[in-house]
Amino acid sequence: MLLLILYLIAITAEAMTAALAAGRRDMDWIGVCIIACITALGGGSVRDVLLGHYPLTWVKHPEYLWMTAGAAIITAIAAPMMRRLQSLFLLLDALGLVVFTVIGCQIALEMQLPITVVLLSGMMTGCAGGVLRDVLCNDIPLLLRKELYASVSMLTGALYLLAAHYAVPELWAMLVPMGIGLLFRLLALRFNWQMPRFVYRDDWR
Amino acid sequence: MLLLILYLIAITAEAMTAALAAGRRDMDWIGVCIIACITALGGGSVRDVLLGHYPLTWVKHPEYLWMTAGAAIITAIAAPMMRRLQSLFLLLDALGLVVFTVIGCQIALEMQLPITVVLLSGMMTGCAGGVLRDVLCNDIPLLLRKELYASVSMLTGALYLLAAHYAVPELWAMLVPMGIGLLFRLLALRFNWQMPRFVYRDDWR
Amino acid sequence: MLLLILYLIAITAEAMTAALAAGRRDMDWIGVCIIACITALGGGSVRDVLLGHYPLTWVKHPEYLWMTAGAAIITAIAAPMMRRLQSLFLLLDALGLVVFTVIGCQIALEMQLPITVVLLSGMMTGCAGGVLRDVLCNDIPLLLRKELYASVSMLTGALYLLAAHYAVPELWAMLVPMGIGLLFRLLALRFNWQMPRFVYRDDWR
Repeated sequence: MLLLILYLIAITAEAMTAALAAGRRDMDWIGVCIIACITALGGGSVRDVLLGHYPLTWVKHPEYLWMTAGAAIITAIAAPMMRRLQSLFLLLDALGLVVFTVIGCQIALEMQLPITVVLLSGMMTGCAGGVLRDVLCNDIPLLLRKELYASVSMLTGALYLLAAHYAVPELWAMLVPMGIGLLFRLLALRFNWQMPRFVYRDDWR
Repeated sequence: MLLLILYLIAITAEAMTAALAAGRRDMDWIGVCIIACITALGGGSVRDVLLGHYPLTWVKHPEYLWMTAGAAIITAIAAPMMRRLQSLFLLLDALGLVVFTVIGCQIALEMQLPITVVLLSGMMTGCAGGVLRDVLCNDIPLLLRKELYASVSMLTGALYLLAAHYAVPELWAMLVPMGIGLLFRLLALRFNWQMPRFVYRDDWR
Repeated sequence: MLLLILYLIAITAEAMTAALAAGRRDMDWIGVCIIACITALGGGSVRDVLLGHYPLTWVKHPEYLWMTAGAAIITAIAAPMMRRLQSLFLLLDALGLVVFTVIGCQIALEMQLPITVVLLSGMMTGCAGGVLRDVLCNDIPLLLRKELYASVSMLTGALYLLAAHYAVPELWAMLVPMGIGLLFRLLALRFNWQMPRFVYRDDWR
């Protein structure tokens, strides 16, 4: 129940940040809605298609599509006011990342998949939506370059798995990893932490 | 039966426009065939994968692959003559859009999915092939930026759903929405109609 | 058994070339691992999703994920030494292409799909990973532009199908097409063979 509320907040937040990204690319209103739906629900869809977990979330709950599209349009209308809410957005975006991660891990656990796949399922749910958004906006996905997105998702998923393994009560097993992941993400944003990069230059191939 | 003929015309037309797009990017002959197949059959494949509707069209009817590849090669050979046929191409491309949309809606209706998903299924079938083409050619998808593609698809799908709901005879339920969608698309091309854009500039994030 | 060993060599080689490509784009370490996994295992995943062949390879064998990620990290650490191993890399990369192709054909044959789909299944397994890598690195896929990748894959697949049709013993049916494909690829690299391109310029549309 709590997770559902957090999930709804998360897809709304993702839709809103996606709408702002689409606005930076001069997309039309329908394009904004499509990008918002893909960003918010794409990560879960990639996970479900790869794991063969049918039907997809938005096929079972088409109201989520309306929610994300609606949030995107409101964002587009209210964009000038959004500037003041930057901190709130970053918080909601980080919340979305950890919520999606835990949900992705849960679904893979229920399907009794191997640990590695459970972890990956969480990462895909948390990150793939943003990758799709960046590919459609013709950017190199942010995920792959900075911001510790994937690392936060991996940490949250690993902590959740650990908690599930030691049979911690479900509520705590969810909330503590999400809290730690969220904190880690906010600290990373605050202090501009970055993963070491691998820089390679040559003219071979 | 009529729909099958229209479908074959549509995938051929999509393959031909895709081949011209590939030619603009200096692709080799196999690349041209691959882009043509992905553009013509990709929308339906995305729909089938997301809805879990197996086997895919081209797995059941591999002859469609040969048709699209063949059309692409003929286009590449006859490209210099294609310039004169621009109007015909635009017409066939618009026809493809509405035909794909109606087929996508039909398939989702047969699977008894919710209305929103039926509408989306039509849009995916109509538009996703072009999005894949643009992503592979490293463009920002046209769909998301102009040309009313998605709007035409949504209108056609909505009219078809309305007709299906009021039990209009199948032939009319198909032809009238397709005709109106086609007209709308051609008017949009003729008078350069565009959806309002959402333009947003900042240096946040 | 032999095929399994070749497969493991192939995914390791693909992971290593992918890591070098990621290094050219300044990705961080997790990005390098993700790109390596997608390049090495993405072709097979695309095939399995399109053919509805569940569960996917890496869901059944999550150890492959660790292998590819490990190979990518070792490559990133040892990158300065890699320059001397160019020829070895090109050989392993070509080996990967033909091995993936034969495996893709085998899987589609076992599913008793039509010939065209079997051939395509081999091509997707061999080439789609590289296409995904290029899309994520924001390039026009190499496959579609040069290097005879797709042609080598098609040739290998066609020879394998021919051998399977004439009931050649499995070992030879695998090794001979792979050998010929490998030879063709290396000759193409050595003599810089290219498919004819289709170049088309206009300002229509």
